[in-house]
Amino acid sequence: MAEGNKVTLHGSWLSLYTKRVELALKTKGIPFEFVEADLNNKSPLLLKYNPVHKKVPVLVRNGKPILSHSGSVLEYIDETWKTGPGLLPEDPYERARVRFWASFVHQQVFESLSLACRSDGEVQEKAIKELLEKLKTFEEGMKEFFPDSIDSIERTKNLGLLDIVLYSGFGAHKVPEEVLGTKIIDPEKTPLIFSWLTALNELPLVKELTPPHEKLVAVLQFFRNNALKCGAA
Amino acid sequence: MAEGNKVTLHGSWLSLYTKRVELALKTKGIPFEFVEADLNNKSPLLLKYNPVHKKVPVLVRNGKPILSHSGSVLEYIDETWKTGPGLLPEDPYERARVRFWASFVHQQVFESLSLACRSDGEVQEKAIKELLEKLKTFEEGMKEFFPDSIDSIERTKNLGLLDIVLYSGFGAHKVPEEVLGTKIIDPEKTPLIFSWLTALNELPLVKELTPPHEKLVAVLQFFRNNALKCGAA
Repeated sequence: MAEGNKVTLHGSWLSLYTKRVELALKTKGIPFEFVEADLNNKSPLLLKYNPVHKKVPVLVRNGKPILSHSGSVLEYIDETWKTGPGLLPEDPYERARVRFWASFVHQQVFESLSLACRSDGEVQEKAIKELLEKLKTFEEGMKEFFPDSIDSIERTKNLGLLDIVLYSGFGAHKVPEEVLGTKIIDPEKTPLIFSWLTALNELPLVKELTPPHEKLVAVLQFFRNNALKCGAA
Repeated sequence: MAEGNKVTLHGSWLSLYTKRVELALKTKGIPFEFVEADLNNKSPLLLKYNPVHKKVPVLVRNGKPILSHSGSVLEYIDETWKTGPGLLPEDPYERARVRFWASFVHQQVFESLSLACRSDGEVQEKAIKELLEKLKTFEEGMKEFFPDSIDSIERTKNLGLLDIVLYSGFGAHKVPEEVLGTKIIDPEKTPLIFSWLTALNELPLVKELTPPHEKLVAVLQFFRNNALKCGAA
């Protein structure tokens, strides 16, 4: 019976999507076992749980896998464990607003960053320009959410879906900034996002989750070199 | 006060995403006013409501716009109007499964169809091959959902998120089949999806929403010619 209630997360230390699920579980105070997947030699168990995408993260509860796709695992966590703070607000209109912006960060803003990281020359230049424009759009949108400044203590109490998605994509913004040699989260151009990320990165829960800067720089540099070699962009 | 409760959908007859919202509202029995947007000359109202993407559909309730992104409007509809059948199941695990597959159809399967429609030669050939493989994966996944055959009468009672997303992408599958000159929804290769779509297309609610075949063929042909001319793939 104890086995039935076990929560296991199959993930990887370098997967941004794994970080999301970890942060959501920890925010809710849900105990879980973490299984570090070998991405070069995926285990039969991981392939059994996720035959469609063969990817981490996979959350397993009561022996049943919950597959990750566009934040659906975060919604599952929020719906399953009602204790702890809600990742989404109660009101349907506010929920829709949070989902819209989370999706904007995930699909639009992060996509431009990802393209910038795997390209060079004109393609990279265009991707960085679009990235900065989208961050500005996000900044403007967020002014409605946060009429006052971002308070790190306040955020500790109310970590939600949008914080988690923003952190997973841009928490370690200094990593692509170093690899690409350009400022991405600029305190002058997008002060609200800059303060927000600074506040998030100060939280003990977040610090604990974030791998050392140098290790992430090495990983991103490795991915970037590979992508450029294969013409992935 | 009456104005406050008004539901308006700004959409377009040729937008698949508009069809989703229309079908969800009609499934729930929610009265709404439909405003056909001029996509070549977008109204100031539409731009005011959706300054980020400047796109339809936009659902407006109580004067507040609910923006469409990755099915978030459908979730909003399901959370706001509790009357009528639920678009998502109650159980969090089942909800996660529906969201996962809806996202698979929307992001993976439909993306291959879309690429096939805007390309030719080798790119098109590869896109069609991937499309058929993804449809097969979806068929396999759906066997767990529908251990018995798809019953059109049963489906009328229980139209849900997955039906709506599948219909919006593939309800009019005969249109790309004619334009591309190839079978997409094959009764022999993916019999479950074929029966499912056939059952969906028989519903009066769905028939009413679907524009005439010839009109859709002309639109797709126009888009395809434009995309090929601009090298959009």
